[in-house]
Amino acid sequence: MNNKEFIGAIALKTGYTQDESQQMVKDVIEQLSKYFESGESVAVSGFGTFEVKKRLERVMVNPATGLRMLVPPKLVLNFKPATMIKVQVKKGGVENG
Amino acid sequence: MNNKEFIGAIALKTGYTQDESQQMVKDVIEQLSKYFESGESVAVSGFGTFEVKKRLERVMVNPATGLRMLVPPKLVLNFKPATMIKVQVKKGGVENG
Repeated sequence: MNNKEFIGAIALKTGYTQDESQQMVKDVIEQLSKYFESGESVAVSGFGTFEVKKRLERVMVNPATGLRMLVPPKLVLNFKPATMIKVQVKKGGVENG
Repeated sequence: MNNKEFIGAIALKTGYTQDESQQMVKDVIEQLSKYFESGESVAVSGFGTFEVKKRLERVMVNPATGLRMLVPPKLVLNFKPATMIKVQVKKGGVENG
C-alpha cells in the first residue's frame, strides 16, 4: 500500500477529494512533526502513542579494526499501537495463516 | 499531547471544525486498521511506514517455576519513521539539551 493508494482510500472513505485528503494528511503529519521536534509524545485515541525516547549511549566495536567507539545518545521515535490496533494486526495473522 | 489537544491543533491547521477533524482522523485510523488486519504494510509519504511483521516464536522461562514455555509466533505492528521525521526528532534533542 503506497501513499497514492492510501490517499485514494481516504478520499473514498471521507468524501473529500484526493487533493483535500492529501492536504489533510500533510497537515496532520506537519502537526505531529512539530510535536516530535519539541520532544513531545502524541497519543492518538484508538490508534496509539508516538513517543520521543532517548536511546542511551552505547559502545560499538568496529569489527574490521577492533576499535571501540562510543555512540552518543540520541532521540528516536517509538510507536506503541493501541490495544484495538494490536488485536486487528493479530487477526491478520489468523486470516493469512 | 493528548487526543483532544491533537484534534484541536489539526482543526486549527486545516480549517475544518473539531468534529470534522475528529471524524477525519477516525476515518484515517479505520482505513489504516483495515490494511493492518489484512497484513498489509502502509507507507505514508514524508511520515513513515507501518509494517506488519511476524515476531518469531521464542522460549520463555518462568522465573518462579523454572519451567520453559514456547511463546508462539505473533504479528506485531512496526513503525519506521521517514528520514525527515527522524531529523525532526533529533532536532528536539538539540533544543531540549
